[in-house]
Amino acid sequence: MTDSDASHPSTFAGLAEPGRVDPVRLDRLAEVAVKVGLNIQPGQDLILTAPVAALPLVRRVAVHAYRAGAGLVTPILSDEQVVLARYSEARPESFDHAAGWLFSGMAAAFGEGAARMAIAGDNPMMLSGQDSEAVARANKANSHAYRPAMERITGFDINWSICAYPTAAWARLVFPDLPEPEAVARLANAVFRASRLDGPDPVAAWAEHNANLMARRRWLNGHDFQALHFRGPGTDLTVGLAEGHEWMGGASTAKNGVTCNPNIPTEEVFTTPHALRCEGYVRATKPLSYMGTLIENIEVQFSQGVIVEAKATKGEAVLQKMISSDEGARRLGEVALVPHSSPISQSGILFYNTLFDENAACHIALGQCYAKCFRGGTSMGAEEIRQRGGNSSIIHVDWMIGGPETDIDGITASGGRVPVFRGGEWA
Amino acid sequence: MTDSDASHPSTFAGLAEPGRVDPVRLDRLAEVAVKVGLNIQPGQDLILTAPVAALPLVRRVAVHAYRAGAGLVTPILSDEQVVLARYSEARPESFDHAAGWLFSGMAAAFGEGAARMAIAGDNPMMLSGQDSEAVARANKANSHAYRPAMERITGFDINWSICAYPTAAWARLVFPDLPEPEAVARLANAVFRASRLDGPDPVAAWAEHNANLMARRRWLNGHDFQALHFRGPGTDLTVGLAEGHEWMGGASTAKNGVTCNPNIPTEEVFTTPHALRCEGYVRATKPLSYMGTLIENIEVQFSQGVIVEAKATKGEAVLQKMISSDEGARRLGEVALVPHSSPISQSGILFYNTLFDENAACHIALGQCYAKCFRGGTSMGAEEIRQRGGNSSIIHVDWMIGGPETDIDGITASGGRVPVFRGGEWA
Repeated sequence: MTDSDASHPSTFAGLAEPGRVDPVRLDRLAEVAVKVGLNIQPGQDLILTAPVAALPLVRRVAVHAYRAGAGLVTPILSDEQVVLARYSEARPESFDHAAGWLFSGMAAAFGEGAARMAIAGDNPMMLSGQDSEAVARANKANSHAYRPAMERITGFDINWSICAYPTAAWARLVFPDLPEPEAVARLANAVFRASRLDGPDPVAAWAEHNANLMARRRWLNGHDFQALHFRGPGTDLTVGLAEGHEWMGGASTAKNGVTCNPNIPTEEVFTTPHALRCEGYVRATKPLSYMGTLIENIEVQFSQGVIVEAKATKGEAVLQKMISSDEGARRLGEVALVPHSSPISQSGILFYNTLFDENAACHIALGQCYAKCFRGGTSMGAEEIRQRGGNSSIIHVDWMIGGPETDIDGITASGGRVPVFRGGEWA
Repeated sequence: MTDSDASHPSTFAGLAEPGRVDPVRLDRLAEVAVKVGLNIQPGQDLILTAPVAALPLVRRVAVHAYRAGAGLVTPILSDEQVVLARYSEARPESFDHAAGWLFSGMAAAFGEGAARMAIAGDNPMMLSGQDSEAVARANKANSHAYRPAMERITGFDINWSICAYPTAAWARLVFPDLPEPEAVARLANAVFRASRLDGPDPVAAWAEHNANLMARRRWLNGHDFQALHFRGPGTDLTVGLAEGHEWMGGASTAKNGVTCNPNIPTEEVFTTPHALRCEGYVRATKPLSYMGTLIENIEVQFSQGVIVEAKATKGEAVLQKMISSDEGARRLGEVALVPHSSPISQSGILFYNTLFDENAACHIALGQCYAKCFRGGTSMGAEEIRQRGGNSSIIHVDWMIGGPETDIDGITASGGRVPVFRGGEWA
């Protein structure tokens, strides 16, 4: 699961283009985002962050949200060129600074019951040409300032959801060899297909999909594994699971009682690893797009839950800064299972966006855990979550470790092994 | 002086269009807005509200603000279609609700020293087709929620400024008979000329203009009139001035010590009337564009400072709701002098936007007064301002009462009369 787009509303991108985005399916996406993603409640306010370039979707989301009875829809739009103006013109000492007033306001609104939607679609490489020191400082300042709002989301106080709009800047990166209108059309088709909008009744298709994910969750929860053992090329990793962990995926219910789908699309089931119990080595199977930088061929060694060595053939400096964000940034906060046959994996597209790419492969996330991935977790305090092995951090970064050769065993309390994945598929 | 665009950041409009807006003069406008309008200080944050359609100017303002040493520039962009989606789709009971979390956050940011820029340019008639009851309720809720931030601006705690971008929606209204690209080019030329960007050194031109306005202020302050007596077609109005009032205009200095130009453009000198001392009748000389409704041919009777009768040939229902916003909405908060020969008056254009139209004619404003229009006013408490005759309200709405036949006398403490205007010009 990702909330990376939720954590940095001030670093989105672009300018609105009509492009070749099919308006019928765009409207369906808005309807699915509102009814399935958020399940917005009558009278509930909505805070909606998006790049300016995603305005066509923002507008349709506003229409569907108000039709569903939303109180007030407040879009917070960001612009790539304004963000880049900062990196090219601002004084160096200003990068430790964030819009705390805006994030504190959001936290207050969530505290009063507002729902949260993020529309992704900014250029994933927006900041790749900028000074990595300045980028890291700005990201850290943003993460700290955003924390009160982020905790409402990771603590699942309210219904929230992320979906995506196929902006031109994103499409150019995904399909660099196509003319822009074709690139946008291809990306739009991929986004719409992954978001399960192609059938006659997308809302019903999501109900069926959620039921399938629920069956996987029940099987895993029934086994209550102590650990998962991942094997594959460059990978031999044992991921201990937190005490009282619960597998989640698809629809889930926030503390406010609203059942929502935090990610549109989603193909994963996921839970909380034990922050002190990860051993072995792991090789990423896809590049990681982190805050505008592409990190390639990550290889990491864990001992007693903590990263003791981390390398990458590209973007290693950003990787090192990322895992140095705080103590918890070197430990796991999530483990997720996705079969190699998932539709997003089969599309063969590298989206450079976690919302999609994490649904193409099994993955782990460094940083903050999700309280909801414990039995009774949403009513637990931070200290109890920590004692059960839940990690805490200002970051939550997913990266892909699964592929067609991935084998996974579940290790039971008695030390027995149960095949979970073989050759990248559910065993 | 207007802060009407500052008070409703959630009701702006549009989509970005390159149009035929000259990029060289657009960049000059951004530079003037930052250096003359705001005079942004090194390390100072900037909150910038604008319609999405004004994005080309937002981007240039961000560049110039960062070059001048701004800390963090945070744009809050609004979209006409999202606002209209509310009116067409939202539940009736939701209109008494505003984004208090956002406005409270802004107030907190101003309290910590952030500067404030508003870019006007939304379609002035955006809400003219909507239910006036819903519009009035939403405006009232916005005004209440925005009040903590508004008080930082009317109290002049921080440097702030409004300028304008010639959006297509605005241009279509001003030049309904021209094709859109020509309408945008015409409006852009008018905005740029009014903003004094046509000479070789706009920043120096503004210094000279500010010096001229300062000479008028000094002459008026030297006389310390008790009242002004306006005569013209349909008008015979005596506007008592507040005790210890001070004439302002052009550049002025905020409590944070920064000298800024709150309105770009500006041609007026203005002060605070006495809320209990206005007598007679007055006829508006131009239509008033208020929250998306055009109010035409306003005629008002004052007695002991309060409106006892108000009529209009069009939009009278909106006028009546406006002056019923609260007790102070029926009393004056500002009186301003502008010669008929002002460049904006001579352009002959009705802009449907107070920032421009108020600089074409003498005007009065209903509602909240400006504390800075008292000698020592920025350090006075609300009670002292009230005792001296300063009005208090959630609204501040300027409307035009001057024209080529306007005569004004200043009435001195001893009852003598001094000619101030004759035939619409300084006497």
